[in-house]
Amino acid sequence: MSVPGLSLNLATVRPQFGFAAAVDACLAQGITAIAPWRDQVQAIGLVEAARIVKINGLQVTGLCRGGMFPATNYAGLTAATDDNRRAIDEAAALGADCLVMVVGGLPGASKDIAAARGMVADGLAAVLPHARSCRVPLAIEPLHPMYAADRACVNTLEQALDLCDALGAGVGVAIDVYHTWWDPKIRAQIARAGRNGQILAHHICDWLVPTRDLLLDRGMMGDGVIDLKQIRGDIERAGFHGPQEVEIFSSDNWWKRSGEEVIATCIERYRTVC
Amino acid sequence: MSVPGLSLNLATVRPQFGFAAAVDACLAQGITAIAPWRDQVQAIGLVEAARIVKINGLQVTGLCRGGMFPATNYAGLTAATDDNRRAIDEAAALGADCLVMVVGGLPGASKDIAAARGMVADGLAAVLPHARSCRVPLAIEPLHPMYAADRACVNTLEQALDLCDALGAGVGVAIDVYHTWWDPKIRAQIARAGRNGQILAHHICDWLVPTRDLLLDRGMMGDGVIDLKQIRGDIERAGFHGPQEVEIFSSDNWWKRSGEEVIATCIERYRTVC
Repeated sequence: MSVPGLSLNLATVRPQFGFAAAVDACLAQGITAIAPWRDQVQAIGLVEAARIVKINGLQVTGLCRGGMFPATNYAGLTAATDDNRRAIDEAAALGADCLVMVVGGLPGASKDIAAARGMVADGLAAVLPHARSCRVPLAIEPLHPMYAADRACVNTLEQALDLCDALGAGVGVAIDVYHTWWDPKIRAQIARAGRNGQILAHHICDWLVPTRDLLLDRGMMGDGVIDLKQIRGDIERAGFHGPQEVEIFSSDNWWKRSGEEVIATCIERYRTVC
Repeated sequence: MSVPGLSLNLATVRPQFGFAAAVDACLAQGITAIAPWRDQVQAIGLVEAARIVKINGLQVTGLCRGGMFPATNYAGLTAATDDNRRAIDEAAALGADCLVMVVGGLPGASKDIAAARGMVADGLAAVLPHARSCRVPLAIEPLHPMYAADRACVNTLEQALDLCDALGAGVGVAIDVYHTWWDPKIRAQIARAGRNGQILAHHICDWLVPTRDLLLDRGMMGDGVIDLKQIRGDIERAGFHGPQEVEIFSSDNWWKRSGEEVIATCIERYRTVC
């Protein structure tokens, strides 16, 4: 039985499976869309990963991840843009729907978040021509404000869309419920993104109460407080009908279970609470 | 030597001192402004706490805390408004500059954050006449989005100020750098709050990288990534010149040191990085 509309971000089964095994496990349960991470692709080789995608007719809902632009010096900034160009090439080789951009936080010992945000805008502008020529949309992912210092200084959907508007064609957003569910402006900003065709991906998981770790305690859909159906409804009304991509980092729970059980649970919850 | 411009939120030395001992320790190092929590006041008794405040000429920069409005039923909503009226009375008895409002999160198993926000607006409106008659300003404290589910569903300064504007006179905001530093709109919203005279308190600490616990790993000023001088500058340009109130919850570090050392460090950092 196939599960149209569901994609598995392979970080969800990172400890259990490499790229090929993850694909096999997805296909065995009817999932035909995936979102791999660059290190998972590199471990098997880009050519082989692309071959597996092609022969199985997989949809790649995104490649994770580009970004990480801020740096303390020119060499660092240049290295970041070079690496992002390679990430764009990889996304193109995989036929990914987008390259997910986790833009980076404060570089070094900086306390200047406005400067970091400026570096992000500059970095995106620097790699955008290459992305356009490769026909790889860049999906800026606003990350939860608790990651502003160390992972991404783009922290609201409104901020991400302002950036998209400034950059022009070829840039949109990845809307991850974990990062955005709390935002009092989320519904209005989803509608705004839809009007401009800027929704490129929809990531799902859940926010647990309590949350025991800032990074590795994401919940399975239905186990937390996020109104997943409402957000999905808003996203579909905004014109995005691509797969919902499950992305769960869970060091003490889901990463300790069998990959098959995790995938089966994702499917069951997708059918009941998403 | 006195330390004008610095207030100690007594949660910063919660394990070390009760109300009277905390006041003595502050006075011994020249601090003449405090912000106690209701349980700390109740432990010594409101009358005695008010007497200590008065005889020492202390400024009470805020009483923590009112709020926690959302509930699953009418009895719960009524109990919350009753408790807030009592908190207003206590703030009045202490001569506090404001009652800090941590508004509450999702009640019960609710996933309806819009409904919770509605309950907050209704609850504030219900107690506001009593606050006005007691001349106790209500300071809505937007909490970091990582607390949206379990502590406060008001999560940005913009959202808090929209609420203030809707409620009218007698309501403002407590701006805590821990909760707001990441916000791309913080500078504009501080200016907006200043134009309307809505800044009632300024809380300081720091955001540590990494942050090891969502609640109890706040940093001492200077140990994290927040540009404290810039935020203070913005707040003063917006017309607020009240004390900076140190509020640090730190179960594994500052709560394990002597209260005298904590206070001395607060003073030293206040003089150098704030």
